[in-house]
Amino acid sequence: MRFVVWFLSLLTVFCPAECGNVLVWYTEGSHWINLKIVLETLIDRGHNVTVLVPDAALFMKAKESDRFSFQHFSVSTSAQDMQDFLDELLHFSVYEMDQLNLLQIQMKFYKLASKHQDMSISHCDGILKSPELMDKLRNGKFDVVLSDPIYPCSDIVAEELNVPLVFTLRFSIAHAVERMCGQIPAPPSFVPGSMSKLTDKMRRPTSYCEMMGKADIWLIRTYWDFEFPRPFLPNFKYVGGLHCTPDMEEFVQSSGDDGIVVFSLGSMIDKMPKETSNMIASALAQIPQKVLWRYGGEKPDTLAENTRIYKWIPQNDLLGHPKTRAFITHGGTNGIYEAIYHGVPMVGIPLFGDQSDNLVHMKAKGAALSMDNIKTTQPQDLVDGLNAVINDPSYKENAMRLSRIHHDRPVKPLDESVFWIEFVMRNKGAKHLRVEAHNLTWYQYHCLDVFAFLITVLTLVLYAVFKMCKFFIMRCCFSSKRKSKKE
Amino acid sequence: MRFVVWFLSLLTVFCPAECGNVLVWYTEGSHWINLKIVLETLIDRGHNVTVLVPDAALFMKAKESDRFSFQHFSVSTSAQDMQDFLDELLHFSVYEMDQLNLLQIQMKFYKLASKHQDMSISHCDGILKSPELMDKLRNGKFDVVLSDPIYPCSDIVAEELNVPLVFTLRFSIAHAVERMCGQIPAPPSFVPGSMSKLTDKMRRPTSYCEMMGKADIWLIRTYWDFEFPRPFLPNFKYVGGLHCTPDMEEFVQSSGDDGIVVFSLGSMIDKMPKETSNMIASALAQIPQKVLWRYGGEKPDTLAENTRIYKWIPQNDLLGHPKTRAFITHGGTNGIYEAIYHGVPMVGIPLFGDQSDNLVHMKAKGAALSMDNIKTTQPQDLVDGLNAVINDPSYKENAMRLSRIHHDRPVKPLDESVFWIEFVMRNKGAKHLRVEAHNLTWYQYHCLDVFAFLITVLTLVLYAVFKMCKFFIMRCCFSSKRKSKKE
Repeated sequence: MRFVVWFLSLLTVFCPAECGNVLVWYTEGSHWINLKIVLETLIDRGHNVTVLVPDAALFMKAKESDRFSFQHFSVSTSAQDMQDFLDELLHFSVYEMDQLNLLQIQMKFYKLASKHQDMSISHCDGILKSPELMDKLRNGKFDVVLSDPIYPCSDIVAEELNVPLVFTLRFSIAHAVERMCGQIPAPPSFVPGSMSKLTDKMRRPTSYCEMMGKADIWLIRTYWDFEFPRPFLPNFKYVGGLHCTPDMEEFVQSSGDDGIVVFSLGSMIDKMPKETSNMIASALAQIPQKVLWRYGGEKPDTLAENTRIYKWIPQNDLLGHPKTRAFITHGGTNGIYEAIYHGVPMVGIPLFGDQSDNLVHMKAKGAALSMDNIKTTQPQDLVDGLNAVINDPSYKENAMRLSRIHHDRPVKPLDESVFWIEFVMRNKGAKHLRVEAHNLTWYQYHCLDVFAFLITVLTLVLYAVFKMCKFFIMRCCFSSKRKSKKE
Repeated sequence: MRFVVWFLSLLTVFCPAECGNVLVWYTEGSHWINLKIVLETLIDRGHNVTVLVPDAALFMKAKESDRFSFQHFSVSTSAQDMQDFLDELLHFSVYEMDQLNLLQIQMKFYKLASKHQDMSISHCDGILKSPELMDKLRNGKFDVVLSDPIYPCSDIVAEELNVPLVFTLRFSIAHAVERMCGQIPAPPSFVPGSMSKLTDKMRRPTSYCEMMGKADIWLIRTYWDFEFPRPFLPNFKYVGGLHCTPDMEEFVQSSGDDGIVVFSLGSMIDKMPKETSNMIASALAQIPQKVLWRYGGEKPDTLAENTRIYKWIPQNDLLGHPKTRAFITHGGTNGIYEAIYHGVPMVGIPLFGDQSDNLVHMKAKGAALSMDNIKTTQPQDLVDGLNAVINDPSYKENAMRLSRIHHDRPVKPLDESVFWIEFVMRNKGAKHLRVEAHNLTWYQYHCLDVFAFLITVLTLVLYAVFKMCKFFIMRCCFSSKRKSKKE
C-alpha cells in the first residue's frame, strides 16, 4: 500500500498537469526518429503514450527498451510494397529525373503519387474501417492525438474520437498544407514557396484542408536560426532542433590538428551506384582531414587512408566533437539541426524532397555550400567545397552565430513542444489561437466582396450623377432653344 | 577587497548575461506604470537603467525608492502645457465629441494633433539638439534603447547612438505603426483595424516608418487571452499582463456573501461633471454588493451606503480578492489585464483612445459588457450591466477561462520581456528576426511587378499568335484567290 502511495506521489512530481493519454499517429524514417524524443519526454512526465503502427511498418519497430505501447493495425499493403515504393521514389528523385523530359517526369510523378495515395488509403481504411480498433481507441479516453501529417487521416480519426489534434511537421513541403489548411499567411514576394516540382500538391480538394485545419497546434520542426523571418500564426510553434542533445562521447582522438569531417546521407540512402561512391571517395582522399562516412553499401575502390566507412555513426555526438571541421550532409532537417546545434559548417549533397531547399536556407545564412545534386557533382567540386567551408573562417563564424541563436531562446524546443501538447490536453484544445480566416471564403479573406460592393455603389452614383448632369444640360439647351424659337 | 569579490559574485548570480546599460525613453501615465515593472526586474538582474525624463514630466517623478537614474533634459514646453493638452484631449474625447459635426471634429482633432506634434518636436529637440546630452548618452555605452513609441524620436536617438532598439507597446493604436513600420501583416478581412476615428494617422510619411521599422523587438502588451488570433512576425512578442502580481492583501472583509465591486476609471480621469458622478452613484446604490470607487472628485449627492470613494485603491489586490464579483472599468489595458489575471468579469465605461476597442475584445470573448460611453449611459443601463455580469454565470466562467489561458503559457510575460531585452543586448540586435518585407516596395510586396511582367509577356504572345494566324489566313485566301483567278 505504501509503495502505491509513494508511486502515485512520484507521478505527481513528474507530471505537473493531470497525467493523460496520448495517441500518436504512425510515421516513418527520420520523422519517427524526431517524434520518439517527444514521446520519451511525455512518458518521463507520467503520460501514457499509445502509438498506432501498421503491420507493414519499416521503421517503427517495438524494442524492449521502448516504454510506449504499440497499437497495431492491419493494412492491405505489405512492408515489401512500402520498401519498393520508397526505393522507386528515391531512384526517381536522385538518379532518374534528369534523364526524363517534362512529360515523362509528370507521368512518373503522377504514377508515384497514385501509388502513395493507394497506400495512404489502405492505411486509413486499416484504422477507420476496423470497428474493433475504433472502439478500442474510443475506450482509450485519449486527451490528444499527436500526428506528423505526412501520413494522412489523423485529422479524421481525431474528429471521430472527438479529441484535440496537434500536428508536428517540418515547414516547407511546398508550404501548401500550412498555407491552405493552417491559414498561415505567405506573401510569395518574401516567403519562398519552395519545391516547385511538387506544386500540384497545392491543388488538393478543400475538404482535405477543412479536416487538417482543425488541428489545434502546429509544431513546426524549424526555428529562426533556419527559417527566413515570415508572418505566422499564434498556434504555430517553431520547435526545430528538439532532438539534439549535448551528450558527447570520446570517439575521435586519432585525427591531428586538421580535425575530422563527418559524412552521412541520412537514414534513407544506404547504397548508391558504384561510380557515385567512387567519385565521392576519390574526392575525400584529397583533403587533409580524417573522414567518418556512414554508408551501408560496398567499399568504394578509390577509398583512401583518411576515410573510414561505418554502417552507423553517433552523428550528433560526432558533430559536437571539438575536432569536427565540417559536415557533409544530404540536407535532411534532423542532420542540419544537429550541425546548427553544434555550430558546424556544412557541405550539402541534396538527394530529394525538401533537402535542396533546406540547403538553400543554410547557404543564404552563410553556414553551408551546396552541390546541385549527387549525379552532376565532380570530385573537384566536393574538394573545393570542403576546403572552402573548412578554411574560410566566415562559414564557421556563421555556423556559430546560428548556434548561438538556436540556443538563446526563452524555452528549449523540446520543452515547448511538450508544453503545447500538454496545454491542449489540459484545456481540451486551443481554440483561442484559431484565426477567423478558417471561416472565410477566399474572396472574403481578400475583402473582394466588400470591394465589389463599393465598386457597384460608386458606379451607380457616377451613373446617376452623369444622368442628372445630362438631364439638366438637355433642359438648359432645350429651354434656350425654345427661347430662341419663340424669339 | 573580499567585499568587492563578494559583491561581484552577487552580480553574476543575478545577471546570467553580461550586465549592461539600458537607456529608457520617457513616457507618461499608465504606460510608465507598466514600463516601471520591467525596469525593476532589469535592475534586479544587475543591469544599469537610465531613464530619459523631460523637465515637464507629469508622471515620471523620481522617488527615493527608485533604483534607476533619471537623465533630465530641457524642453520648451512646461508641465502645465502638457497637463492642459491632456485635459483638452480628455474633455474633447469624453464630453465634446458628440456635440460636434464631422467637420468640427476633424478641425478640433487636427488642432490637437498639431499641438501634440509641437510638443513631440520640442521633446525631440530637447535631446537631439543638445550636444552635451547627446555626448553624455554616447559615453553612456548603452547596450539597448527601450522605448514606448507613443512619444517619438527614440528610433532616431537609437540610430544616432548606434544602439539596438526594443519597442514596448499596446497593440491596436489603429494598427498603423505595426502594419506600416513593423511590416506585421493585417488582412482587414479578419484583423479588425480599430479606432477608425484615427485613420488619418495611417498616412504618416514613410520616413517615419523607415526609422521605426529598425526596431529589433516589438514587445506587445497583449496576449491571446485578449487578442483575436492573427498573423504576426517572429520579432513581435506578446507580453500582456506583465505588471500583474499575485500579492493580495486583506482589505475587504466587511462585505457579506454578495461580495464587492471594484470601480476605477484609470489614472487619467480624476474628476467628472457633477451630473455624471451623480448618475453613476445613483446606479451603484441599486446593487446589493459593496462598491469601492477610486475617484478624486467631489462626493456625489446620490452616494449610497454601499459605496465608498477612495482617492487611491490597491486595484490589483482588490481584483484578486475572493469576494470581488465585478470590475467597473474604463477599459485601459492595464486594468483589463488585472481583471483577466484574476478572472473577474467586467462592465466597461469607455472614455477615449483604445478603450472602446479593448472592451469590444472582452465583450467578444464573453467576459464583459460595455456601455457605449459615459455621456449617454443611464443609471439603469449600469445596474442591468452589473447584475448581468454578476448573476449570469457565463461571464464569470469566461473570465476564468481567459485567466486560465493567461496563466497557462510557457514563459511568464515579464520574464519573456526581460529575456528579449537581454537577447538584444547580448546579440547586438535581433536581425535574424527581421522580415525581408522591410526592403520591398509596396508593389514588390504584392508581387505586382511580377504580375505586370507576366501580363505583358502574355499580351505579346497573344498578339504575335493573332498576327501569325491573320498572316496565314490571308495567305491562304490570297493563294486560293490567285488560284481561282488563274483558273
